[in-house]
Amino acid sequence: MAIAQVGPGDEGGSRRLALTDEDKDGRDLFVQWCKQAGCSITIDDLGNIFARRPGEDNSLPPIVSGSHLDTQPHGGKFDGIYGVLAALEVIRTLNDNKITTQAPMEIVMWTNEEGSRFAPAMIASGVFAGLFSKEFAYSREDSDGLTLVDELKRIGYLGEQVCGDHPIGALFEAHIEQGPILEANKHQIGVVIGGQGQRWFDVTLKGQDSHAGSTPMVGRRDALVAASELIQAIQRIAYDQAPHGVATVGEISVSPNSRNTIPGEVFLSVDIRNPSDGVLSEMHDALETVIAHIRETHRVSVDCKEIWHCPPVIFDQKCVSAVRNAAVTANYSHQDIVSGAGHDACQVCRVVPTAMIFVPCEEGLSHNEQENAEPADLEAGCNVLLHAMLEMAG
Amino acid sequence: MAIAQVGPGDEGGSRRLALTDEDKDGRDLFVQWCKQAGCSITIDDLGNIFARRPGEDNSLPPIVSGSHLDTQPHGGKFDGIYGVLAALEVIRTLNDNKITTQAPMEIVMWTNEEGSRFAPAMIASGVFAGLFSKEFAYSREDSDGLTLVDELKRIGYLGEQVCGDHPIGALFEAHIEQGPILEANKHQIGVVIGGQGQRWFDVTLKGQDSHAGSTPMVGRRDALVAASELIQAIQRIAYDQAPHGVATVGEISVSPNSRNTIPGEVFLSVDIRNPSDGVLSEMHDALETVIAHIRETHRVSVDCKEIWHCPPVIFDQKCVSAVRNAAVTANYSHQDIVSGAGHDACQVCRVVPTAMIFVPCEEGLSHNEQENAEPADLEAGCNVLLHAMLEMAG
Repeated sequence: MAIAQVGPGDEGGSRRLALTDEDKDGRDLFVQWCKQAGCSITIDDLGNIFARRPGEDNSLPPIVSGSHLDTQPHGGKFDGIYGVLAALEVIRTLNDNKITTQAPMEIVMWTNEEGSRFAPAMIASGVFAGLFSKEFAYSREDSDGLTLVDELKRIGYLGEQVCGDHPIGALFEAHIEQGPILEANKHQIGVVIGGQGQRWFDVTLKGQDSHAGSTPMVGRRDALVAASELIQAIQRIAYDQAPHGVATVGEISVSPNSRNTIPGEVFLSVDIRNPSDGVLSEMHDALETVIAHIRETHRVSVDCKEIWHCPPVIFDQKCVSAVRNAAVTANYSHQDIVSGAGHDACQVCRVVPTAMIFVPCEEGLSHNEQENAEPADLEAGCNVLLHAMLEMAG
Repeated sequence: MAIAQVGPGDEGGSRRLALTDEDKDGRDLFVQWCKQAGCSITIDDLGNIFARRPGEDNSLPPIVSGSHLDTQPHGGKFDGIYGVLAALEVIRTLNDNKITTQAPMEIVMWTNEEGSRFAPAMIASGVFAGLFSKEFAYSREDSDGLTLVDELKRIGYLGEQVCGDHPIGALFEAHIEQGPILEANKHQIGVVIGGQGQRWFDVTLKGQDSHAGSTPMVGRRDALVAASELIQAIQRIAYDQAPHGVATVGEISVSPNSRNTIPGEVFLSVDIRNPSDGVLSEMHDALETVIAHIRETHRVSVDCKEIWHCPPVIFDQKCVSAVRNAAVTANYSHQDIVSGAGHDACQVCRVVPTAMIFVPCEEGLSHNEQENAEPADLEAGCNVLLHAMLEMAG
């Protein structure tokens, strides 16, 4: 609740876009809390922060847990930051109980998970996992043309360690589910066995600007009408792969965006997700078919460029078992679940043994200022995280 | 082509914004040409210019024709100025042929038709018709805060006659069509029977922001999906009133406009036009019916607010017949047409018997420096104007 006030939203949530002043203030507070818990801080050259609690054998790679601190423009109080603070709570609990683990333990905070200021999402964990180059990440621009690297420097979080060089023995990430499944099944813990694949597309439709009064309906080349048909078709593509397929148009802009001019150009984003890469390909094929049809019937050009392809991920058996064992030991009702959202853990799992822990959130609502979770469920998630980390750290 | 060089555009068109130095230079040249043609000049207190050629009976109200000299910022060489020079060509032709009409004839040039420097458009013809007060017109400001009245004074065109007091027996306005209909139908002359009515609406749809990955399709309250269905329905509403009904969504914005968040809110503009106010009402009713359906099926709130209602105008039967008769006499291919755009004639017709003559323009393109029209079509428009004015003037 204290950190939710750093970059407060207008309607009870948070607004801490990546590498803004609000992000910096959140980082400063997090670093202060970690130091108060006795941790030492390392920052890498993507701004990822590692806070270390030594173990008995500091030659062992640390057991790490964390998430992200940035939010959506209208973000909630739990998405990301819950996983960071759950890891801090684990450290504080070990301190309170004077427990020294065999391997060191660390809290991690990954830069720019949301991707709402700099696309794509999960960029710093992606560089860590070798999925993106540092140069690519550095050159990403926000809507004002500011680059990620300049903003990282500006807020003082461009560290020296090369991103990816930081050793990690195992990674856990606790997170709110951001969906309605655990709540519907009345389960406190989701044992996350993997994540959906996602593909992102930038679509630009070009027709012709013309006068809204003197241009008859027949003969118009209205890019927004074409786009609206595409949005409808994308819905059907997702419904055809129910219940696991989802598809979303989250961004749209039109030109010239004038009340009495037929829009000549539209940009929109497409996000499709499925646990199977084969089904994702089918959904993409269906998208291309629809686009070809729209090109012809609306006499608009349509450029569809894939800007990101994240294949489905399967988490590490041993880490997943550690989570499940912890839930059983603590006697929390639990179920296996596939993550619909992308998470930093879904990137890092390609190079580090990884698992995730989900807790329910109210009505599955997330990326929304009304996002909410129950203290008892958040506590259950922390306890499962503690025991899973202890199992791996010794 | 000579006057197009007064305030030349960068790409072959013209840039003569109302009451700028370029507008003054254009007016000076126009007045010089009128005087060379033997006309006397009267200027009213909105800067409208009347150039008079006496008739046999100068107690009769003059038969007047003209248009405007100002342009859009990236205007063409024909929009407005064609109608002013077509009227001058009529006067020169009468001089060349030593014809004296019964009633006097006049050329009119209306101030600030475009509205791109001082909003709203057609302001001086609107004052003439009693639709706006002089005080309202005088107080309009450009983007630098300069008022219309001060700029009128500055360029020396604040006349003494009270705007609206100038007698007019009948008014004709020749203009490029600014749409594709005449070109498509291979007709040289459009006999304009009136102007479309327009209604403008602001529509806001509110659903719920939520996560694009973890929110199943069923249960979403996606405001952009709802909006896309509305845009499709608005198309059908217009097509149901073909060929005269048109409807356009020119502006759209979504919130939070983030690639991986289901949009919770959408704003869009709706512009519907039809020559019949009754049909406009039917179109509005159909819009409300669709909105009610969308509210229910998408579980979104939809607020639809009318922000402007401009009733259709119907031109004077006798003036319209004079135009049609002239086209028949001269054996030009022609058709009746309704103006989709607003024109000075659509204002003045409320107080004076009025009609318009359209000529084709290339690909219907206007408000664009590439705007073009063929000399043969422009000549046809002048000939029709000559004969229509002669019929009315005697």
